[in-house]
Amino acid sequence: MQIDLEQMLRNVRNRKPVIHNITNYVTVNDVANAELAIGASPIMSDDINEAKDIVAICNGLNINIGTLNERTVDTMQAAGTYANQMKKAVLLDPVGMGASKFRMDVTKHLVNHIDFDVIKGNASEIKALMQGTMSNRGVDVGFDDVVTKDNMKKIAEEMNKLARDKKCIVAMTGEIDLIANGLDAFAVYNGHAEMSQITGTGCLLAGLTTAFIAANTDHMFAATIASICAMGVAGEIGYSHKQPYEGNSSYRNHIIDALYHLSASDLAEKARYEQII
Amino acid sequence: MQIDLEQMLRNVRNRKPVIHNITNYVTVNDVANAELAIGASPIMSDDINEAKDIVAICNGLNINIGTLNERTVDTMQAAGTYANQMKKAVLLDPVGMGASKFRMDVTKHLVNHIDFDVIKGNASEIKALMQGTMSNRGVDVGFDDVVTKDNMKKIAEEMNKLARDKKCIVAMTGEIDLIANGLDAFAVYNGHAEMSQITGTGCLLAGLTTAFIAANTDHMFAATIASICAMGVAGEIGYSHKQPYEGNSSYRNHIIDALYHLSASDLAEKARYEQII
Amino acid sequence: MQIDLEQMLRNVRNRKPVIHNITNYVTVNDVANAELAIGASPIMSDDINEAKDIVAICNGLNINIGTLNERTVDTMQAAGTYANQMKKAVLLDPVGMGASKFRMDVTKHLVNHIDFDVIKGNASEIKALMQGTMSNRGVDVGFDDVVTKDNMKKIAEEMNKLARDKKCIVAMTGEIDLIANGLDAFAVYNGHAEMSQITGTGCLLAGLTTAFIAANTDHMFAATIASICAMGVAGEIGYSHKQPYEGNSSYRNHIIDALYHLSASDLAEKARYEQII
Repeated sequence: MQIDLEQMLRNVRNRKPVIHNITNYVTVNDVANAELAIGASPIMSDDINEAKDIVAICNGLNINIGTLNERTVDTMQAAGTYANQMKKAVLLDPVGMGASKFRMDVTKHLVNHIDFDVIKGNASEIKALMQGTMSNRGVDVGFDDVVTKDNMKKIAEEMNKLARDKKCIVAMTGEIDLIANGLDAFAVYNGHAEMSQITGTGCLLAGLTTAFIAANTDHMFAATIASICAMGVAGEIGYSHKQPYEGNSSYRNHIIDALYHLSASDLAEKARYEQII
Repeated sequence: MQIDLEQMLRNVRNRKPVIHNITNYVTVNDVANAELAIGASPIMSDDINEAKDIVAICNGLNINIGTLNERTVDTMQAAGTYANQMKKAVLLDPVGMGASKFRMDVTKHLVNHIDFDVIKGNASEIKALMQGTMSNRGVDVGFDDVVTKDNMKKIAEEMNKLARDKKCIVAMTGEIDLIANGLDAFAVYNGHAEMSQITGTGCLLAGLTTAFIAANTDHMFAATIASICAMGVAGEIGYSHKQPYEGNSSYRNHIIDALYHLSASDLAEKARYEQII
Repeated sequence: MQIDLEQMLRNVRNRKPVIHNITNYVTVNDVANAELAIGASPIMSDDINEAKDIVAICNGLNINIGTLNERTVDTMQAAGTYANQMKKAVLLDPVGMGASKFRMDVTKHLVNHIDFDVIKGNASEIKALMQGTMSNRGVDVGFDDVVTKDNMKKIAEEMNKLARDKKCIVAMTGEIDLIANGLDAFAVYNGHAEMSQITGTGCLLAGLTTAFIAANTDHMFAATIASICAMGVAGEIGYSHKQPYEGNSSYRNHIIDALYHLSASDLAEKARYEQII
């Protein structure tokens, strides 16, 4: 399966998708700047009174439950439903879904009532999602939190089951990122370990991926892979600009800066990924 | 009409106005740091239970509807009313007011019930405001979104109508910024095109302008012009400190840093503006 | 009394305490990055539906009333109560408590119903706390807002009264920071005056202190002193990395970066403090 990373990024930069973000207040500023950096146009809005209007003028919807509350959960549900009706791209980032029954219940409800194009999470979130929402509860979702070259194919097979069950693309981030569409699966090796010391790199990726799928509606699987490569490559380029005394706060700026300058050829040249299923 | 930019900035730095910000959660941190950078003292508060007390200890109120919800809209209305009663400076930034009926309705309500000293927006927001709120609906509010030296005088004339109708100063930001008080109008040419790639430069300006008018209550028109020059000059100075690999995230820091160091003489020397009506 | 600063920091880095933050949306991103920088693991959550679950998986709870509202106040109350029941470390940062009756009432209620391990504020907040909550209203809480070597012992004695009354550690930040446990008191001389020009250095410290006490439950007084030294030392190191043209926005990044690299030996070497009672 051929993935044209360059075209995926070019389409984001040229089409400038407008992204509706219902996201947490912790990393929202970085999400907005990262979407601007990649060429998208962010709108942050979480009130149900305007959900329909905002979805209507957007190309994609990014739902992130990081600092959810009852009011914003209602808006997520409404906006997701409108996005499905209006055929806009929709992504779910079930941040910390295993951390509380409330998050688990909200995520189940969202996943059961909204057709997401992409669900993206880290290993513990994706595992919690499998355990909590798979229609066939007998599925074995026991796998290690750390993806390695040895276990990645087995984990990707389980992700494919979830992808088929929910009819969506499933992306699982970590030192190795895995992306599954129910049939095929890819591994992405880009990134830097210190990215995990910055709050919100996962939220940034969710925002970016929404921009990529919104700008590439006919190639959402390739677009998701491209966005994850882009985030990882930006993490590598950003790291190369870190001064020895700089830490996670400056690194965050360097990553968004790297996204800002990322060219299609940079992405194609530096991306390290392969099809594993 | 003479504008003493230096005195306007000196008054902010010397009087250290306390600014009550009811603003969106996307750019709130940058607004607070920008107000501190210019010499003001920010308070962020959006609960109606303390609106009266907070307005009472502040010199100015900055209302920004960027991530409005029903709860905070009630607080905006209450705080604005208290600010009028207590004769505090009040600014409205109707962020994205054309994006939803909810924002339009909220803005209309605020504009009809609160006497704003300054309303600041971009071209599409100011146009939506004209279309939605002018008492004389027959007014022609059709003008281009891009202000040029060719069309700026005509646009400023329409802004003057709005300014007279609402008895306030109207500021419209863009590549050329226009400021109208119902009688006169000024154009400001400072700034850098890449500022539009940072989330919240408009919100920062709203915070700064509130600080300037709160510290210069007898010269609010000149203060508004000075604040817009200050933002533009900071954008230029900040840009000069950008490394080639830096993008919108670092540029944001450079702009706030430039505000921090901006002297009255820098402002007077680098400001590029003229009276056009 | 010996304070093993190095051990306090080492325990944070090794034990990686999980911190539940119910904090304001102005500085929340910096709080999260600062906690990550020091080695802790932040969770931001303010919904009452998940308060019990989130407290259960955390080692410490940081309550900051900076942008309080009725909904989040209920969550603060609930989470604090759960934290007491589950014997988790709990800190209160009564931001701006003297600014409104609402903040005063909320703080009184929290202080009267939750056993805080540490209450941290600036001089005006701690004074408001003494005036508003001391069971013996006859106590003289009049002292200057600026702590000097001349008045610090007298102020620390009053802080000790509050500490005994509330059975907690009281930390008061300023050019000289004071920490009292009801019996002893320490002064910390680290930091840089320009830190006050950054929004949220107090909030960062609250987050850090919660991490320190959560990782050092048997030595909370020493842990509080260590966290305040760490913040001050990071402020000094961060300042040394500032370029002449950099202001408060970049300084914020430098401080968090300095926390990221702060070693136990740096802390021990650069900390300047003494026991004053």
